[in-house]
Amino acid sequence: MQIHQEEIVALNKDLLVEHKEKLTQLSRKHSNLEDIIDTISNYNIAIPSWALGAGGTRFGKFGFGGEPSTLEQKLEDISVINALTKSANAVSLHIPWDIPKNTNAIKEKATHLGLHFDAMNSNTFQDQDNQEYSYKFGSLCHTDKNVRDQAVAHNKAVIDYGIALGSKSLTVWLADGSNFPGQLNFRRAFENTLASLKEIYAHLPADWKLFIEYKPYEPNFYSMVIQDWGTSHMLAKDLGEQAYTLVDLGHHLPNTNIEHIVATLMTRGMLGGFHFNDSKYGDDDLSVGVMKPYQLFLIFNELVFGMENNPANNPIPAWMIDASHNLKDPLEDLIQSIEAIETAYAKALLIDQKALEEAQLKNDVVTAQRILQDAFNTDVKTILAEARLRNDGAIDPISAYRSLDVRNVLIKERGMNSKATGL
Amino acid sequence: MQIHQEEIVALNKDLLVEHKEKLTQLSRKHSNLEDIIDTISNYNIAIPSWALGAGGTRFGKFGFGGEPSTLEQKLEDISVINALTKSANAVSLHIPWDIPKNTNAIKEKATHLGLHFDAMNSNTFQDQDNQEYSYKFGSLCHTDKNVRDQAVAHNKAVIDYGIALGSKSLTVWLADGSNFPGQLNFRRAFENTLASLKEIYAHLPADWKLFIEYKPYEPNFYSMVIQDWGTSHMLAKDLGEQAYTLVDLGHHLPNTNIEHIVATLMTRGMLGGFHFNDSKYGDDDLSVGVMKPYQLFLIFNELVFGMENNPANNPIPAWMIDASHNLKDPLEDLIQSIEAIETAYAKALLIDQKALEEAQLKNDVVTAQRILQDAFNTDVKTILAEARLRNDGAIDPISAYRSLDVRNVLIKERGMNSKATGL
Amino acid sequence: MQIHQEEIVALNKDLLVEHKEKLTQLSRKHSNLEDIIDTISNYNIAIPSWALGAGGTRFGKFGFGGEPSTLEQKLEDISVINALTKSANAVSLHIPWDIPKNTNAIKEKATHLGLHFDAMNSNTFQDQDNQEYSYKFGSLCHTDKNVRDQAVAHNKAVIDYGIALGSKSLTVWLADGSNFPGQLNFRRAFENTLASLKEIYAHLPADWKLFIEYKPYEPNFYSMVIQDWGTSHMLAKDLGEQAYTLVDLGHHLPNTNIEHIVATLMTRGMLGGFHFNDSKYGDDDLSVGVMKPYQLFLIFNELVFGMENNPANNPIPAWMIDASHNLKDPLEDLIQSIEAIETAYAKALLIDQKALEEAQLKNDVVTAQRILQDAFNTDVKTILAEARLRNDGAIDPISAYRSLDVRNVLIKERGMNSKATGL
Amino acid sequence: MQIHQEEIVALNKDLLVEHKEKLTQLSRKHSNLEDIIDTISNYNIAIPSWALGAGGTRFGKFGFGGEPSTLEQKLEDISVINALTKSANAVSLHIPWDIPKNTNAIKEKATHLGLHFDAMNSNTFQDQDNQEYSYKFGSLCHTDKNVRDQAVAHNKAVIDYGIALGSKSLTVWLADGSNFPGQLNFRRAFENTLASLKEIYAHLPADWKLFIEYKPYEPNFYSMVIQDWGTSHMLAKDLGEQAYTLVDLGHHLPNTNIEHIVATLMTRGMLGGFHFNDSKYGDDDLSVGVMKPYQLFLIFNELVFGMENNPANNPIPAWMIDASHNLKDPLEDLIQSIEAIETAYAKALLIDQKALEEAQLKNDVVTAQRILQDAFNTDVKTILAEARLRNDGAIDPISAYRSLDVRNVLIKERGMNSKATGL
Repeated sequence: MQIHQEEIVALNKDLLVEHKEKLTQLSRKHSNLEDIIDTISNYNIAIPSWALGAGGTRFGKFGFGGEPSTLEQKLEDISVINALTKSANAVSLHIPWDIPKNTNAIKEKATHLGLHFDAMNSNTFQDQDNQEYSYKFGSLCHTDKNVRDQAVAHNKAVIDYGIALGSKSLTVWLADGSNFPGQLNFRRAFENTLASLKEIYAHLPADWKLFIEYKPYEPNFYSMVIQDWGTSHMLAKDLGEQAYTLVDLGHHLPNTNIEHIVATLMTRGMLGGFHFNDSKYGDDDLSVGVMKPYQLFLIFNELVFGMENNPANNPIPAWMIDASHNLKDPLEDLIQSIEAIETAYAKALLIDQKALEEAQLKNDVVTAQRILQDAFNTDVKTILAEARLRNDGAIDPISAYRSLDVRNVLIKERGMNSKATGL
Repeated sequence: MQIHQEEIVALNKDLLVEHKEKLTQLSRKHSNLEDIIDTISNYNIAIPSWALGAGGTRFGKFGFGGEPSTLEQKLEDISVINALTKSANAVSLHIPWDIPKNTNAIKEKATHLGLHFDAMNSNTFQDQDNQEYSYKFGSLCHTDKNVRDQAVAHNKAVIDYGIALGSKSLTVWLADGSNFPGQLNFRRAFENTLASLKEIYAHLPADWKLFIEYKPYEPNFYSMVIQDWGTSHMLAKDLGEQAYTLVDLGHHLPNTNIEHIVATLMTRGMLGGFHFNDSKYGDDDLSVGVMKPYQLFLIFNELVFGMENNPANNPIPAWMIDASHNLKDPLEDLIQSIEAIETAYAKALLIDQKALEEAQLKNDVVTAQRILQDAFNTDVKTILAEARLRNDGAIDPISAYRSLDVRNVLIKERGMNSKATGL
Repeated sequence: MQIHQEEIVALNKDLLVEHKEKLTQLSRKHSNLEDIIDTISNYNIAIPSWALGAGGTRFGKFGFGGEPSTLEQKLEDISVINALTKSANAVSLHIPWDIPKNTNAIKEKATHLGLHFDAMNSNTFQDQDNQEYSYKFGSLCHTDKNVRDQAVAHNKAVIDYGIALGSKSLTVWLADGSNFPGQLNFRRAFENTLASLKEIYAHLPADWKLFIEYKPYEPNFYSMVIQDWGTSHMLAKDLGEQAYTLVDLGHHLPNTNIEHIVATLMTRGMLGGFHFNDSKYGDDDLSVGVMKPYQLFLIFNELVFGMENNPANNPIPAWMIDASHNLKDPLEDLIQSIEAIETAYAKALLIDQKALEEAQLKNDVVTAQRILQDAFNTDVKTILAEARLRNDGAIDPISAYRSLDVRNVLIKERGMNSKATGL
Repeated sequence: MQIHQEEIVALNKDLLVEHKEKLTQLSRKHSNLEDIIDTISNYNIAIPSWALGAGGTRFGKFGFGGEPSTLEQKLEDISVINALTKSANAVSLHIPWDIPKNTNAIKEKATHLGLHFDAMNSNTFQDQDNQEYSYKFGSLCHTDKNVRDQAVAHNKAVIDYGIALGSKSLTVWLADGSNFPGQLNFRRAFENTLASLKEIYAHLPADWKLFIEYKPYEPNFYSMVIQDWGTSHMLAKDLGEQAYTLVDLGHHLPNTNIEHIVATLMTRGMLGGFHFNDSKYGDDDLSVGVMKPYQLFLIFNELVFGMENNPANNPIPAWMIDASHNLKDPLEDLIQSIEAIETAYAKALLIDQKALEEAQLKNDVVTAQRILQDAFNTDVKTILAEARLRNDGAIDPISAYRSLDVRNVLIKERGMNSKATGL
């Protein structure tokens, strides 16, 4: 399925007058409105190839109809999101869930749909059929060199797929760790992991980046080899200039000040990637912005500051949504996620950085708080709508999605029982 | 597979002299040693029928060989554990994972193996094939009466199975809740749940108990209808005298003082059941005692006090192990779990309650702490071994299990790829 | 110091035109705007008498100038806040920090300032000079009846002060608990507490309410006698119809779903009082709304629903700000707190309850989320300003406060080193 | 007050026979017992000069009699602990709470008492009388260079005191941070802190070490400049080879795997110091070992491994007890703390490292768990007693302390109302 430009134009028509009125009002208040609209309209977030199917928990999964069962269908789903939001022009591929049988054909298909390939993702946390060694007790950290070699080879293969597809980065997320005290020697696990990563790093083309994700727990419940940003940063520094830390919002202990971590990494030019989701308890992988929209705003405050004040040359982070769609139609959920991200981003752009700095230098805490809250409390729906509109997207993407009856069209195309690969 | 008495006797032989020597030493120090051995030797913990297969996380599962694929085989696995530990003479059945095709035959098989049926478990957190309505958005709390009726009927059917098997209680664990603010009306969900429970309660035979489990999150990540003991207690009080709260160690927010909850419930005679496991982060379902053995000891301190001082007539709680065996052979893990539970229990029995009360009344905190720590620091391996020995169990169950090469025997019997039902 | 009506009128003058324009725009969008303005303009939150001085941590306190050193001065400070916000017409008195020497005179002074006396607060968590027995090891739960009697007598005395001042409720917050396992017998502590509360309850006039606060930890770090809402609720039910649970936002374990607790209590008509503050880690007592404004909004969503749908006759809760002003001028901080509370309240009032119910009944999660987020993302500054304006308050209270140079006036009056009683 | 050798000998007399009997039994089981006793008998933990008085919380403090009111008396208190435990031969001084008026005299006094000076502690988290600039908004991170200069000068002065007293290290703990989003620019705060630390580092004698402590929150409740080990490690690497990270057990977010952090730091030779305490909720500063003795054991497992396998030349960490004595007599509490630390240490020394490594290499999780638990469940009281005995300490220090009626002697000497400096 593909959404045609005329359909969107038709749906926008009824909303246009009211939208333009609001925009006029807004532009009177905010002198930098054009810049903000511009920034938002140029912003894109990658969609992972595993996000288009039903997510689940260890207690089970509830399917829905019309899931994409091929990589081609997944690209089509992303193009639906992109057509409506104009902010999802990239896919982040997972190997082996989405091995392209014919890389050229897939690349062409993506290009045709206006999509490209963002960071590649490897998987050494599950055993695949016909795999020689098991990852039950780890992969890059494993005590058995055979297992480590197999995991390294897999990562190299993922890089190779990425090269063929035009990707420029590899994200390594390791489930490696232990469930029981004593199971693992922490030092040996760390050193094995570092040595394995060095081999992978050596395979990286010169214009690629390596992103090292961290996570304090799950699926291992006592220790994770890369438990925090400090460990990821240590590994990245050891590897070399192409290695960076990747922050996933759900991968933190309760109450962690994530925006502070973001600031520290950007101060050193070490923030490579960003995975969006939200959570109340653990790595809940809920749609970003549903639990802690103010925290998301504070994180974007740091991102905006870091990108605008960048002596350490931090690259623009690779943005990706990494949530699990257990109850909602994934396409609707992803559209809501994109809106939440851009809402936070636009609000952060509204912060009067000069006034903020002044208040900070005087330790005028009341004013500093007020500046942030005023920006946060501003309604930016119109800014987002305008940013989409200028790219021929939908003023109201969720309503458009429903008006176009996308899910039912997909069900008709693919049936009620199609299954996407993934968790 | 079944372990024969002679095999255990033979394995105990070499350990007997040293064991008896240690016992003599210990008996000199502790005047109430016989009572403690007696209590431990009479103690049994139910094994759930789903615990004999490989557990997993949402990121996957790593199988192992010889998993039981029928209920009969599961009973045999439990009898292996029981033969070695003499503390696992009951099974807690899960419906529909383990529906007995012929209840009489199963009951006979269990009796023959020296096992009986403890609390029954219903399941309304997953959809089964051919199920008319989906539990995707809840069961007893659902907005649609059809779904609630189906869930109520299922629970009644589980009671009926239990009656046929000689069980005397039903455990209701609800996954009902919501992932997103706004998804659920809390009040409606609570009232629907209460009304549904009342129907189930009405189906309960007069000599049965109903256990209401609580959990703050997972598989729902914003709200759970029965989020804490306060809610469970409220529901149980509304239902009537046969309803109780069930405590699962993993179902608490970070840092919860669980022993305090246990004490409060026992003060009111409302603690009906207990699920053992351990965790560091969330509902990790690790083997009990591997993370917080001191907490387990403190909980047993309250249980011992509550059972010995019982004006509110709290029943002896239904004990069950409820862990997930992701990395270890489940039988070995269950044996280690039983040892951990009995270790905590025996240490709690060593507490000098009179001296403790004296110290408490004087607010002599240093002494009170010391009394607890002295009991905790006592090595009770010999007590446990003697308790097993008196029941013809193994002095060292794990070593016996390995000496008898149980897993390989099971693999020979059942093959490498047999699969147990469950999560 | 007192702020005169003309001063506020003068300050509002410049803001009036723009304000009215925004109001007109808003009223076009929201048909129930008048109702919302009305509700907000009738809303008041009590200020505790200890909140006007510098707060601190165990690591110290940083003073500021012009602190009120008498109860009279504290009332004047509150009247300043009230003059600007028109939402702080009550004081919540703490005994013994603020014992009125002459109750009649104080009552008159308050009336003159347009203030009245909300819930009274007792203190059995500190020792006062010339106190016979120490609360080091607890008060209402103490093992020594002399201590319990002293604490009960203190609470009765607080009620008597309240009667004289026209208050209608007593808030009991207990620090009682233990720092070390073994220190306390949980059951004895619970029963002593219940017996003590019964004596206090018996002293309550017929038109009074008793609020029982709960807290999981601090100042005791192992157990607190009233650790959670379940315990508070149990005690309140035992006491009788005048007893209720009080929720303090900071008194919860990490990740607690507080709005769910609020809903449960209101379903049963048991929510008596509410203490506002915010926190990221523990009972941080930061200004409400600075960390989790969305959570505050979700709580108000439940409060609004509970007050509008009230078969169990839950009373209107007693509202109080209970924060610690470590870095900010307390008056500014309290003004910001009031704004944050009313922001959340106004946004919750904007929720389309009918549409929400419809979405919930259909399990249309996407729409339910959207309804809440749309309300939350609406800018309600103008609503709040209009609500103040109609009561002759300030359009922009913080700016007015600064324009009037209140703090410096107070410093001139009271000096740089005056000290308020309190923590 | 001082305890005389004869007094201890007399008290040991009655316990000697039973003790020697137990020792003989133990030596039969553990072939390396002599080595363990040796290690424990050579082990010492520094006592901070502020630990001898009553601790408290922000809700108040409950005093007790006989508190030391001078540095000399504090040294005497430590010598009492040391006489009984023979494991507390050093004091860790806090400036300005314990500025020695005459460094030579104090040094002599300490030497005479068998004590020396361990790590020095600076304080820039409180304002002292007559201090020019306030630390209300930070010290080394402050936006105002005058404040930073003052804080740097203070740290240099502390180093100078330390040089005079024979200390060899400085511990820097910073309360610097913020309570409100927006208050602080994270990057500026980090860079100011680094620049300030560089100045302090430059003042360090060549044979000194600098320990950088980290803490996620408190007394600031939004952000702390050095929030985690990753930040501390980053700063230490920037400073140079004399800078290290210091781990305080209470300074972690809920559920942190601290032993893993310890292992990582030792792998890189970066663990400089260690502060012992215990907690259930936050930085509760309870006596070490009262909440999570198994975690303490696991930490010591890493410490033992790290000290025995040390290619990165990690120095022996500076050990210090850093708890708050709110309810117990500090001397008794410190004695219990020392016992808890040495208990964990001795149990960790009992771990069969070779067997553990073997199990790890085979991923035999069951055996690895068992090896750790067997060591942990061994009763090591006798080992500790023997280690003390060989140094002429008390077999049972707490009982000895009470038999000697130390507290009452101190009260007689110093009165009921003496006050120690500190929090």
